[in-house]
Amino acid sequence: METISTALSYGGTQGVYRHMSVVTGCDMTFAVFMPPHDRPVPVLWYLSGLTCTHANVMDKGEYRRVAAELGVAIVCPDTSPRGADIPDEADNWQFGSGAGFYVDATQTPYAENYNMYSYVSEELPALIAAEFDVDMSRQGIFGHSMGGHGALTIALKHPDRYKSASAFAPITQPSTADWSSGSLAKYLGDDASGWRQYDAVALLEDGYRFDDFLVDQGTADSFLESGLRPWLLEEACKNAGQKLTLRMQEGYDHSYLFVSSFMEDHLRWHMKRL
Amino acid sequence: METISTALSYGGTQGVYRHMSVVTGCDMTFAVFMPPHDRPVPVLWYLSGLTCTHANVMDKGEYRRVAAELGVAIVCPDTSPRGADIPDEADNWQFGSGAGFYVDATQTPYAENYNMYSYVSEELPALIAAEFDVDMSRQGIFGHSMGGHGALTIALKHPDRYKSASAFAPITQPSTADWSSGSLAKYLGDDASGWRQYDAVALLEDGYRFDDFLVDQGTADSFLESGLRPWLLEEACKNAGQKLTLRMQEGYDHSYLFVSSFMEDHLRWHMKRL
Repeated sequence: METISTALSYGGTQGVYRHMSVVTGCDMTFAVFMPPHDRPVPVLWYLSGLTCTHANVMDKGEYRRVAAELGVAIVCPDTSPRGADIPDEADNWQFGSGAGFYVDATQTPYAENYNMYSYVSEELPALIAAEFDVDMSRQGIFGHSMGGHGALTIALKHPDRYKSASAFAPITQPSTADWSSGSLAKYLGDDASGWRQYDAVALLEDGYRFDDFLVDQGTADSFLESGLRPWLLEEACKNAGQKLTLRMQEGYDHSYLFVSSFMEDHLRWHMKRL
Repeated sequence: METISTALSYGGTQGVYRHMSVVTGCDMTFAVFMPPHDRPVPVLWYLSGLTCTHANVMDKGEYRRVAAELGVAIVCPDTSPRGADIPDEADNWQFGSGAGFYVDATQTPYAENYNMYSYVSEELPALIAAEFDVDMSRQGIFGHSMGGHGALTIALKHPDRYKSASAFAPITQPSTADWSSGSLAKYLGDDASGWRQYDAVALLEDGYRFDDFLVDQGTADSFLESGLRPWLLEEACKNAGQKLTLRMQEGYDHSYLFVSSFMEDHLRWHMKRL
């Protein structure tokens, strides 16, 4: 692991790091905020949305003040493999670079690199456990948009590992959303039955459960109808008996101006459970 | 004035706007955060540093939470005129675009456009007063680096207009600092006596005073010795009987990770005086 930068912030350390990832076959960059601490701290995973890198939430997410106060590490991975050797569609913001969708691809040529599910749920956690002063028995996971959906699905599949999960404006059913179904077909093949393990609504239908979810969704989000559709998650949770706190936030959009406004609520929600 | 974007944030509105500026001879972009309010609110001017636009502090400054709570508008101008017709030195980050130094240039060809002193102290305030629900009898001014220095000098020259002034890691004596003296010569000519009205230390020597200043400076700031030198301001204030609270912040650098860490302190300092 190589340190790209570190700087003091709110008494903690905001760092950016790079390592060679086996599962994605390329160098991966990620950000870690370590709060001031004198013992191992719990870890909160933040998964970012389409087009983002580790940097968007680091720059605009406004998590450090409360994370420093509460004593929790915030880990922000990238959203896809990247580099000259990585298959990509440069003119498609919904696929390839910046659009890993937190799946393990099965299709050629993507299966070689696009394994963000294994990356964020296995490989990077092992590195974080080895390199930082964290207590891996206390992990939570959250994210925004594509990453909010990633957090929900990964929590549903690992209810014992993560003690808390929340999302800002998550995609709820990527199998049928305009902006994701085409990408799932490329990563996972045309047989949509293979997509269900990466679809929050389908996982709930298939019996996966988590303790409870917090979801914030802005009512002025321009992707509400086409990509996000929180009512699908609400319905699936209701049918499954899955606890969900869904808050429709009047007038908020899809940007980090929305995410940052409710970041503190999410951090406090997680820390009550970590 | 044209609205480029607005979004709800912490219950207030973060907007970005553009207008044709007479004093800089070009379109200028600026950001305004309006807190939730039911009467005109005080205004706090934030002047940014070298290389920045209105966007850096808007993205990374973390001012909205406290500004919403305290009920103060935050106005963030650009740092220079910009555009294809504006004289510039594209390979020089200390001059031209992003480096207006809050002076009114006197030298050809810069005098036509590089009038950021008049822009931030006269033209933009008139526009803000006309277009936003603000109380212009309650104004404060602050900024970072080049903009922190701009805030100190503008406050010294208008002690009755601004009720509060503070700075993050300001340049203190641009006339003699490595990274600014060359630029002042180009904007203002080789006769350094004309630079004194744009130099905080010189203004203090020349009898200008302000109520009191708050200055935060990181001890790990890589520009401390070459560009910033807070001890020059401290000495000048001491000699002038000027009140100054200078806080050396152990281990902090020059970035917005430093600025955001102390943003709340500055906003509360200003609001006690506004």
